[in-house]
Amino acid sequence: MTKVRLEAFTDGVLAVAITLLVLDLHLEPGNGESLLDQVLASGPSFAAYVVSFFVIGVIWVNHHSIFGLATTVDRVLLFWNLILLMFVSAVPFTTATLAGAIAEGSAADTRVAAVLYGGVATGFAIAFTLVYGRIMLVLVRTGSMDAGTRRSALLRFGAGTLFYPLLTAIGIVYAPAMLVGFAALSVYYLFNQTGTTE
Amino acid sequence: MTKVRLEAFTDGVLAVAITLLVLDLHLEPGNGESLLDQVLASGPSFAAYVVSFFVIGVIWVNHHSIFGLATTVDRVLLFWNLILLMFVSAVPFTTATLAGAIAEGSAADTRVAAVLYGGVATGFAIAFTLVYGRIMLVLVRTGSMDAGTRRSALLRFGAGTLFYPLLTAIGIVYAPAMLVGFAALSVYYLFNQTGTTE
Amino acid sequence: MTKVRLEAFTDGVLAVAITLLVLDLHLEPGNGESLLDQVLASGPSFAAYVVSFFVIGVIWVNHHSIFGLATTVDRVLLFWNLILLMFVSAVPFTTATLAGAIAEGSAADTRVAAVLYGGVATGFAIAFTLVYGRIMLVLVRTGSMDAGTRRSALLRFGAGTLFYPLLTAIGIVYAPAMLVGFAALSVYYLFNQTGTTE
Amino acid sequence: MTKVRLEAFTDGVLAVAITLLVLDLHLEPGNGESLLDQVLASGPSFAAYVVSFFVIGVIWVNHHSIFGLATTVDRVLLFWNLILLMFVSAVPFTTATLAGAIAEGSAADTRVAAVLYGGVATGFAIAFTLVYGRIMLVLVRTGSMDAGTRRSALLRFGAGTLFYPLLTAIGIVYAPAMLVGFAALSVYYLFNQTGTTE
Repeated sequence: MTKVRLEAFTDGVLAVAITLLVLDLHLEPGNGESLLDQVLASGPSFAAYVVSFFVIGVIWVNHHSIFGLATTVDRVLLFWNLILLMFVSAVPFTTATLAGAIAEGSAADTRVAAVLYGGVATGFAIAFTLVYGRIMLVLVRTGSMDAGTRRSALLRFGAGTLFYPLLTAIGIVYAPAMLVGFAALSVYYLFNQTGTTE
Repeated sequence: MTKVRLEAFTDGVLAVAITLLVLDLHLEPGNGESLLDQVLASGPSFAAYVVSFFVIGVIWVNHHSIFGLATTVDRVLLFWNLILLMFVSAVPFTTATLAGAIAEGSAADTRVAAVLYGGVATGFAIAFTLVYGRIMLVLVRTGSMDAGTRRSALLRFGAGTLFYPLLTAIGIVYAPAMLVGFAALSVYYLFNQTGTTE
Repeated sequence: MTKVRLEAFTDGVLAVAITLLVLDLHLEPGNGESLLDQVLASGPSFAAYVVSFFVIGVIWVNHHSIFGLATTVDRVLLFWNLILLMFVSAVPFTTATLAGAIAEGSAADTRVAAVLYGGVATGFAIAFTLVYGRIMLVLVRTGSMDAGTRRSALLRFGAGTLFYPLLTAIGIVYAPAMLVGFAALSVYYLFNQTGTTE
Repeated sequence: MTKVRLEAFTDGVLAVAITLLVLDLHLEPGNGESLLDQVLASGPSFAAYVVSFFVIGVIWVNHHSIFGLATTVDRVLLFWNLILLMFVSAVPFTTATLAGAIAEGSAADTRVAAVLYGGVATGFAIAFTLVYGRIMLVLVRTGSMDAGTRRSALLRFGAGTLFYPLLTAIGIVYAPAMLVGFAALSVYYLFNQTGTTE
């Protein structure tokens, strides 16, 4: 398994996952309710679509930055990368659930949906840290990076992971604020990378 | 992030989005209505499928032409490109809504659906202009293009953007005419590129 | 636009279309009918899945054979290739409709579904011929192929196109026979290419 | 047809199939049942999602290992590879059916769903063996591998195929145990390849 193939497969999965988000958008002209009312009631779906699109898009951007460091791909790295993809592929599901809960669910439903959305995000953030740590571990073992550099880079990167449970906690209180937080975090990570030099 | 990877990811998203259009086509044999009647009533869905297929196909063609100019990919360009993909990925949704509204919605529903379809198209046209402007800005800064050339190319390209709100306005009056307009515009852009030399 | 990009995009669309066929398979455990009865009643869906999988798979194989000849990609070739992809992308839709009509529709519904399935197949066969003709036309114009060779290759290839309306006619009489015919034709084309040397 | 293109198309199909698994996850906030109850009742769907994600992911990993040996791609290899993809593409369908049967079906339904899930897995395991055997046959014919090496590698690889009907039989008795077995088998194959040297 070469790095190029791993990246190509990852790109494919992320491209499909980001495009499947559109399946969460759905209106039914002629079902008795006016289309304008349906559009206005779909605000949460549109907002969740935009936020999740950026969340996945930024994962794609940073996946490439991190793999810019990688020299070899071993089985452990493959494993963590599959775990990462498994969580990211679940984003269209948690997005649809959250949008549906905000629009039509009870307050308790919205809390559950926020935990689901934030929990999956926390999952891929942790998997991302494990991917990053593994890539650097190989560099340390081959003498291309010293252990101290790896430790501090990993700490800095891992600290970013804490935003995810924090946003989840915010989502339990007020779900739309969590969405705004994820949007802000994504734009931040798009323009300011953590822990990598590219 | 290299240009090659950006193009590969963009190709992936566009390939998925263009193929997801087929999910808007749906017949139900054995639901009580004859299949022939269902086919005849699905005219708007078939027409919208063909038009949106060409709309996305031509975006793909011109994305490559424009990126033929690009020398580097920076974070701002990544951002505008993600915005572009976000709008294009929404096309299967606006296509399904428009076809549904023409077939089964009220006149008001059809107007709303036309605004949605044309609005998303206007969105990706503007994002495309921002992508193009950014690519040329980098060229100007590195001295590979003079500012005047960029300005006039951008004006010429941006002028094409005006077709989108115009077609949207036509769609508010008569939605099928908007679809014909988008088909004509796509075929025009397929054979005559605006603003690029390839 | 280079040949490599055209092939990559085509591969992407075909990979998505061939995989979307699975969405036509659907069982509902716990809906009152035993799952075994549902499986037995799904015979047409399974058969149509297998046949259409090979139909699209063989289009992919032969697309590469034909593009092995191509030296440049012009706008006319792009146009015919988009038409080809538009028809192939509709195969999951015609497959679902045909399977549904055989399982649950009237005799008249099945005839309509067979015409739809065969009509779309005829559409991509014709588009394929136009793609092939255009590629060879460029070769003739640049002096890499003589006009006579092109004419006879095109005739031989175009003759294969006649199988599609023939199979459609068979489908109007008895739809399962049409599916068997498409399966046989696909396996034939997989092992014996028409009109190209690979 | 080159090896690179075959691998790229295979990657595309596997990337789409693995991502389509998410469509099996579905909750309906506001349908009268609390979202928390729906989440708890979705345990089988979540478990099946994780297991099938790894099953397809490991097929992708091992496909590349096996094709690392391949020197040429002939029509027979193309045929077996299409059969392989046809079975793998059906995994989202058998996954959804199995999860649905465990959650809502009768005991008989669950047995049928386990046979379907295990049967499709047995199908791709056999197809994988045929792909591997064909690749080595070409090597033997060209003198790059001796027939005895091929025979023993094929036997070792083919022996792994026996796990699939075995797990299917376990699934007939108790479906969740089959899922655990597939998860264990996938992780085993991810870290320990059978029959190839990578």
